[in-house]
Amino acid sequence: MSKKKISIIGASGYTGGELLRWALMHPEMEVSQITSERFAGQSATKLNPNLRGFTQLAFVPVKELKTDIDAVFICTPHKAASPYVRQFWETGAKIIDLSADFRLHNKDTYAKYYQEHPAPELLDKAVYGLPELHREQIKGAKLVACAGCLATSIILPLAPLIKSKLIAPSGIIADSKIGSAAVGASFDISTHHPERSGSVRSYKPHGHRHTAEIEQELSAIAGSPISVGMTPHGIEMVRGILSTVHASLPGEAKDVDIWKAYRSFYTGSPFVRLVKDKETLYRYPEPKPLIGTNFADIGFEIDPEKKRIILMSAIDNLVKGSGGQAIQCFNLMNGFDEKMGLWMPGFHPL
Amino acid sequence: MSKKKISIIGASGYTGGELLRWALMHPEMEVSQITSERFAGQSATKLNPNLRGFTQLAFVPVKELKTDIDAVFICTPHKAASPYVRQFWETGAKIIDLSADFRLHNKDTYAKYYQEHPAPELLDKAVYGLPELHREQIKGAKLVACAGCLATSIILPLAPLIKSKLIAPSGIIADSKIGSAAVGASFDISTHHPERSGSVRSYKPHGHRHTAEIEQELSAIAGSPISVGMTPHGIEMVRGILSTVHASLPGEAKDVDIWKAYRSFYTGSPFVRLVKDKETLYRYPEPKPLIGTNFADIGFEIDPEKKRIILMSAIDNLVKGSGGQAIQCFNLMNGFDEKMGLWMPGFHPL
Amino acid sequence: MSKKKISIIGASGYTGGELLRWALMHPEMEVSQITSERFAGQSATKLNPNLRGFTQLAFVPVKELKTDIDAVFICTPHKAASPYVRQFWETGAKIIDLSADFRLHNKDTYAKYYQEHPAPELLDKAVYGLPELHREQIKGAKLVACAGCLATSIILPLAPLIKSKLIAPSGIIADSKIGSAAVGASFDISTHHPERSGSVRSYKPHGHRHTAEIEQELSAIAGSPISVGMTPHGIEMVRGILSTVHASLPGEAKDVDIWKAYRSFYTGSPFVRLVKDKETLYRYPEPKPLIGTNFADIGFEIDPEKKRIILMSAIDNLVKGSGGQAIQCFNLMNGFDEKMGLWMPGFHPL
Amino acid sequence: MSKKKISIIGASGYTGGELLRWALMHPEMEVSQITSERFAGQSATKLNPNLRGFTQLAFVPVKELKTDIDAVFICTPHKAASPYVRQFWETGAKIIDLSADFRLHNKDTYAKYYQEHPAPELLDKAVYGLPELHREQIKGAKLVACAGCLATSIILPLAPLIKSKLIAPSGIIADSKIGSAAVGASFDISTHHPERSGSVRSYKPHGHRHTAEIEQELSAIAGSPISVGMTPHGIEMVRGILSTVHASLPGEAKDVDIWKAYRSFYTGSPFVRLVKDKETLYRYPEPKPLIGTNFADIGFEIDPEKKRIILMSAIDNLVKGSGGQAIQCFNLMNGFDEKMGLWMPGFHPL
Repeated sequence: MSKKKISIIGASGYTGGELLRWALMHPEMEVSQITSERFAGQSATKLNPNLRGFTQLAFVPVKELKTDIDAVFICTPHKAASPYVRQFWETGAKIIDLSADFRLHNKDTYAKYYQEHPAPELLDKAVYGLPELHREQIKGAKLVACAGCLATSIILPLAPLIKSKLIAPSGIIADSKIGSAAVGASFDISTHHPERSGSVRSYKPHGHRHTAEIEQELSAIAGSPISVGMTPHGIEMVRGILSTVHASLPGEAKDVDIWKAYRSFYTGSPFVRLVKDKETLYRYPEPKPLIGTNFADIGFEIDPEKKRIILMSAIDNLVKGSGGQAIQCFNLMNGFDEKMGLWMPGFHPL
Repeated sequence: MSKKKISIIGASGYTGGELLRWALMHPEMEVSQITSERFAGQSATKLNPNLRGFTQLAFVPVKELKTDIDAVFICTPHKAASPYVRQFWETGAKIIDLSADFRLHNKDTYAKYYQEHPAPELLDKAVYGLPELHREQIKGAKLVACAGCLATSIILPLAPLIKSKLIAPSGIIADSKIGSAAVGASFDISTHHPERSGSVRSYKPHGHRHTAEIEQELSAIAGSPISVGMTPHGIEMVRGILSTVHASLPGEAKDVDIWKAYRSFYTGSPFVRLVKDKETLYRYPEPKPLIGTNFADIGFEIDPEKKRIILMSAIDNLVKGSGGQAIQCFNLMNGFDEKMGLWMPGFHPL
Repeated sequence: MSKKKISIIGASGYTGGELLRWALMHPEMEVSQITSERFAGQSATKLNPNLRGFTQLAFVPVKELKTDIDAVFICTPHKAASPYVRQFWETGAKIIDLSADFRLHNKDTYAKYYQEHPAPELLDKAVYGLPELHREQIKGAKLVACAGCLATSIILPLAPLIKSKLIAPSGIIADSKIGSAAVGASFDISTHHPERSGSVRSYKPHGHRHTAEIEQELSAIAGSPISVGMTPHGIEMVRGILSTVHASLPGEAKDVDIWKAYRSFYTGSPFVRLVKDKETLYRYPEPKPLIGTNFADIGFEIDPEKKRIILMSAIDNLVKGSGGQAIQCFNLMNGFDEKMGLWMPGFHPL
Repeated sequence: MSKKKISIIGASGYTGGELLRWALMHPEMEVSQITSERFAGQSATKLNPNLRGFTQLAFVPVKELKTDIDAVFICTPHKAASPYVRQFWETGAKIIDLSADFRLHNKDTYAKYYQEHPAPELLDKAVYGLPELHREQIKGAKLVACAGCLATSIILPLAPLIKSKLIAPSGIIADSKIGSAAVGASFDISTHHPERSGSVRSYKPHGHRHTAEIEQELSAIAGSPISVGMTPHGIEMVRGILSTVHASLPGEAKDVDIWKAYRSFYTGSPFVRLVKDKETLYRYPEPKPLIGTNFADIGFEIDPEKKRIILMSAIDNLVKGSGGQAIQCFNLMNGFDEKMGLWMPGFHPL
């Protein structure tokens, strides 16, 4: 059987570049086209020096985009993605949208956090692209809206505990630490190295857009509204997220109960690793040893005195939070092994 | 009038080195001796290359320590400090203890977090060395126990709001981010550069020792027990702390009310700066622009939807969290201007 | 006697901001105006968060610049500085130009490295602003052209050895490592944090503009042409330069001869420190312990087998390479102690 | 055909850990044992958190080492490696020694840089493990002594130009910049994060041990003695080396001549990439985009005015400078495709 032909729209950003990297190495993918208006005609390796020797592809303007492909990955900003989703909805191509346009089921919520929805008629066609929650729906989907990076890192540690009703549904605080690549390839004074280097900056103490998808997904699991106060911080790091999630433990849950909830929920989820060692330096999750991989490492600590639990969750925001997750969804949509082209350990030390 | 003769016990660590730096530049201090057993006979500049050209001092063993001095700064680990406090309690010297030995008033709490107290008879003689809370007591004190670095960064943003009863007394979460210098000059695999670089590591998700002094001080202000869940993280940074404190806002407090509480509490506290700009990159506090200074920058953001408040507090842990705070206490104890020898802006960019 | 009134033209960049920081703390300076077209009307602390609490100054457009001042510091890019130099040449103000416009005595050399000189008639009025070489001329100068940062770090270790004819005049290689603040406050993709972080990038392997001033100054000392091959690299660092200078040792010079040459040349130069310890970690110069100071640390190692010498030279490019050097020149021009307002140790660890 | 059984001696360091990572992913390797005295009985993932989910191996003490294996990789320090080489010389196993013990052909040179050679009788059996120079000999070798990391980064850019006699044989300067992982997993104050972070430190200005292998290999190519002055610097980076090599261009060589020399020499060397773009940010080699890969990127710039050439060479010291190079040698020794298990692009941004 021949490989799947895929195209990447909006391929000149970090999300597109990362996706291209994984696609080039995937045994069942053949990259047909990558689009960029600004860099049309230029080599992909100009923006992605890591790919020297791996591709001769050049960016094409979107007007030259072919539609007889097996899958299209959309890496544009939100709002700009919707027209392409509409266009490919009419073709046989599977659509993996990495923008935020189809993550929220409710157009009013979308309007509150973004703007009026540009293609509301397609909202109920999309599956939220977090395989650990929606593996079966993704397998049958034509349109998958990949989960946001911060959302991925916050939903994964919370979902099993909310499902098991081990933690209190209110007062949840997610304090996230994220690297600079999260802003993408566009720059301003806030990303200027002398200003950004060594900073630890709470750039959006509340109201971050990913809050909407976090609450949507967790509320669905709970069967009742879950509210999460989320505060991300840019820290000195390029790739990676550590989300520290603080929640109340109303009952008498012990380590073993938490373990059981996680194990049960994530059986069959190869990219979730539970990390909780006794004594080693890396006894809790952190992004450092998983940078460059599709893993989500999850750990926790119970504070019995204060009856709270501290969850720690680490991902590489460009892989499990973006390009890798998209490939993982693609694998499921095509009946491939979920791990195909993604199964690789990180580096240590890095 | 002649300068005050001071000595630094346990001067070979980062706390001692930082204190020495500020003492050498202070217009009313003359450094008489610095002690270290391990480095006895060696030049201070061997460990502190920044001081080349500023001092010829060498470390002396503690047995050579002179007692006819005006003030002694104790920079040993906890437990090791108590014997020196006892010794100098009998002399005319003012004692500034930078260890944890006399921060807690209650010997049982000390025993819970550290070990049996080595000098309980002196516990009620010590003043907690956080000038913004205890300025007047410090002025008259013979023994000041300087506040811990994380404690300083967490107490300062909370104290005014607890005093004004603007925030709920329960469910307070302090999620701190701290640089590597916090561990001091002693090293192991966890501080080995390849392992520590680029990490974001929740090394003590709950039960950190500074919790005790935070709760002691805030409970005293509230007049009732305050519980703070504190989770520090080592991040890629040498100096500096950012504490993000999450609390509930039970009432209808607006920005102006919070401002008023802070302004009123910190009038006359030159080292606390309230930071809350509308649009600039540095609209919230962060350590980067205050590294090398004694400032504590405090800011906040109200999340009206979730009825919570996010407080942000930044210090240089080696200055306001250690050596600078000790000098500030020394100034007060001697009737000097609180700012003497400490009034200096940070660097930008750094 | 009243303080000197000074103004800073082009104050919104890193050079201007650094100069402002030192000027605000200088006991004999009063900052009259700071100019910026782009940020006119805005507070200086908007761009310099480190100065909160230290100044209420706002930027003024250059058309509002007063000319009855004692000294003017010009922090514009090259070419843009010349008109201001011309303008203030007619007033009583001393002029300290931090741009490159008046560093080169020869207008053809200037034309080769920059463009046609905009004010050639003033070229022979300017003194090259490196106090360690031209202290006496600077004292009597009306116009001082501050040395470039890389040039400062390369001239200082070489000058004494060239004067003493200890090293060969040809084949000198200066391999410099420099922090990101060197590019100034303007940004593009090359300074975008994800691209710049962790890089070690030879952005200009040969032909760097500072080569011209290096060769001018060293040739004047030698009395014959000196050629220096200079290759700067951006590394992961915000402030700081380490220049490693490789030269041949034609004779039988020993450590003591090199020492003697340096000691003799730099007697009376308080900001040059010779660094050469036997065993300590900081036995060679490096920028880390002098960041935030006006020091230039110089060290060396003789390779007897290959008959070469390796010189190492460290400065903070924003202080000794820019704002601090300008203040040092100002002090000399006004008959003040060269160290005034600049005498301060660095921080350790930083 | 069954996979090759391999063992790793001295597997608890960074070299061993890196090798283990690649071996676990190699389609034709089966890791039989990993040895460590200190960590015997403990899981490999304790030291290598990146390998969680990829191996259940635990360290065994060396006395339990089985000898009926197909290949042994020795990752001990120099001197400690020789006894194992002797031991396995008698078995059928291919030996890949990552220590320095068998890199130098001359026992006197070894004695000068290290100590008396512990197994001189085997010196002439070993092939220097740099496939780009000795591909054919490696194919037939029983004992390969992998090239040092700095040596690899300095030999590769020089060899073709020395062979083509395009550069002068004397006065070559290699100024290298290297990450902290080069020191390995053992730590002291020099690797303590607060001391090492942000440093740029010339820790061995001359006489570095790798000089010996560089000169051995280049002299062999030249047919006459080549002397290289090598000065490595630790910079803020965990993995990676950039070597900037300065040489004289005696003739009239143009870019095209240099290109030709490189192309001709490295035809058939898949891991050497020539990097020389006109305008892009990454127009010269640097480690950042190749971290985690086995590539060696080489570039250059001619300075026609000074008749010199600047060569730039980047590798990941733990891959092409260590574990990856060992696998590359293993592939050749076993008749596998040189790229097997190693063909992977880097990450961008990282």
